[in-house]
Parts: sequence; structure tokens; C-alpha cells
Amino acid sequence: MAQALLLAQEAATCGEVPVGAVVLGPDGSVLAQARNHVESLQDPSAHAEMLAMREAVRVQGGRRLAECTLVVTLEPCPMCAAAITHFRVGRVIFGAYDPKGGGMEHGPRLPYRAETLHKPEVIGGVREQECAQLLKSFFQALRR
Amino acid sequence: MAQALLLAQEAATCGEVPVGAVVLGPDGSVLAQARNHVESLQDPSAHAEMLAMREAVRVQGGRRLAECTLVVTLEPCPMCAAAITHFRVGRVIFGAYDPKGGGMEHGPRLPYRAETLHKPEVIGGVREQECAQLLKSFFQALRR
Repeated sequence: MAQALLLAQEAATCGEVPVGAVVLGPDGSVLAQARNHVESLQDPSAHAEMLAMREAVRVQGGRRLAECTLVVTLEPCPMCAAAITHFRVGRVIFGAYDPKGGGMEHGPRLPYRAETLHKPEVIGGVREQECAQLLKSFFQALRR
Repeated sequence: MAQALLLAQEAATCGEVPVGAVVLGPDGSVLAQARNHVESLQDPSAHAEMLAMREAVRVQGGRRLAECTLVVTLEPCPMCAAAITHFRVGRVIFGAYDPKGGGMEHGPRLPYRAETLHKPEVIGGVREQECAQLLKSFFQALRR
């Protein structure tokens, strides 16, 4: 999560919503990492998790991340939560909860739905305050 | 939808689940088109709609498709349904309904949720039989 927080900070510096993501391989080493790139790529789907998961399968080969852990500073949105099931990610660790935009523990709660075929292990609230504070500061600065 | 069906047919020929998508601009002209590329790109997020929407914002400039129509042969999954709201697609026309994997009219029914901020117009079941038959034939052939 320390590395994901650094990536989120980098995103904020570049004027992006501060979210960072890291994919760890089965041995715990970093397979891939990314920050939010919605603005720089002008691509609303370029969330940190999406970019990190795509890079992770590229690096690892195959197209499943069953033995891998995705670490991300913010609760994934429904798009990313659904992508997590497509990539068969084994475990998701996220920082701040997102009651408005989250899709794992809020909104459609995709990992807990009957029709969701792949259900990752989910651990939320890791270094929650730091992750949330980054987002809060970013949006406060935007409003000034 | 005729063009989306051709793209879906092309996907099947290449061993991909046959789904095709076209994004129409405000004047009805084709902005972008794509077929499913999960196998060829080894990317579980490379659904036809995702690729077509990303290409459409690239071609059009900006990062919203508010005046655009996404035409796709299969009901979008939750990942694509959520991406549709991120891209602010104005209208979605799809072919076959997907009771197991769909995310618009089935499962989380994302366009109809209270927390979904952008709700596209949705028209399902257009040339439904042809779209569904392509998928059915593809999976029957796989099982042989």
C-alpha cells in the first residue's frame, strides 16, 4: 500500500484524481503498478486498477491473476470491480472506502452477488485515513 | 447493428466470443468500431464495447460520448455497463439479452441504480435472434 500511495500522490501532482494501484505476484513481488490516467490519456476507463491489471497479465503471461493481489488506494468502482472478476484476481486490498462510487462494498457490491462467478477475497480500509486524506485534499484544492 | 453483427462474425472466425460494437457520432456516422479481442490481446477487459468507446473518444476528442450511440450485439457486462456511464454514452442499443452475464437489464442493472449518476437511454433486443444465434453457434462449436 505504501507504493500505491506514492503512485496516488504522483497522480495528484499531475492533476489526476489520486488513486494508485499495484499488482503483486504469487511470491509477493510487484508485477505491475499504475496510477490514474483518465486526464492524461483522455480515457475515462484509464483507472489505476485497470491499467495495472492489464500490465500484470502482459508481464505474467496468460490472462488470469488468480494467485495475485491487487492493492489499490480507493475502493474499486463497478467497472473495476467487474474487471477484477474478469481477470480472476485472487485478492483485493483497498484503502479508502467509496460510499458514492464504490462497487465492491457499496453500490452493486459485485463480489457478493449470486451471479458473480469469481469472488476475490476483499480486504478494505488498509491505511484508510491516508488514502482518503489524499483524495480529500485533492478535491478541496480543486474547489478553491 | 448490421455492422456490429459483421464485427461479431469476424470475432467468431478468429476464435473470439462473437461480440461486435459500433459507436455512432451525433450525426449518425460511425466514429469507432471494434470486436471482442480478449483472446488475441490476452486481455480480459478487451471487450468490443470497451475498445470501441476508447477509440471513439480518441477520434472525437474530449472524453465524453454524450451525443453518441453505442450499438453492440450483446447486452454489456457490468464492467462495460459501468464504463458506459464513465464515458457518458447517450444511448445504448444492444442485440441479445444476457441473463447470466449482463449488467444493464440483468444482474446489477447499473443504469437503473440510484447511485448511477449518468443513465444512458437503453434499447435492448434489436436483431436479438441473429445476435444470440451467433453466440449459440460459437459455443456449440466449442463444445464439439
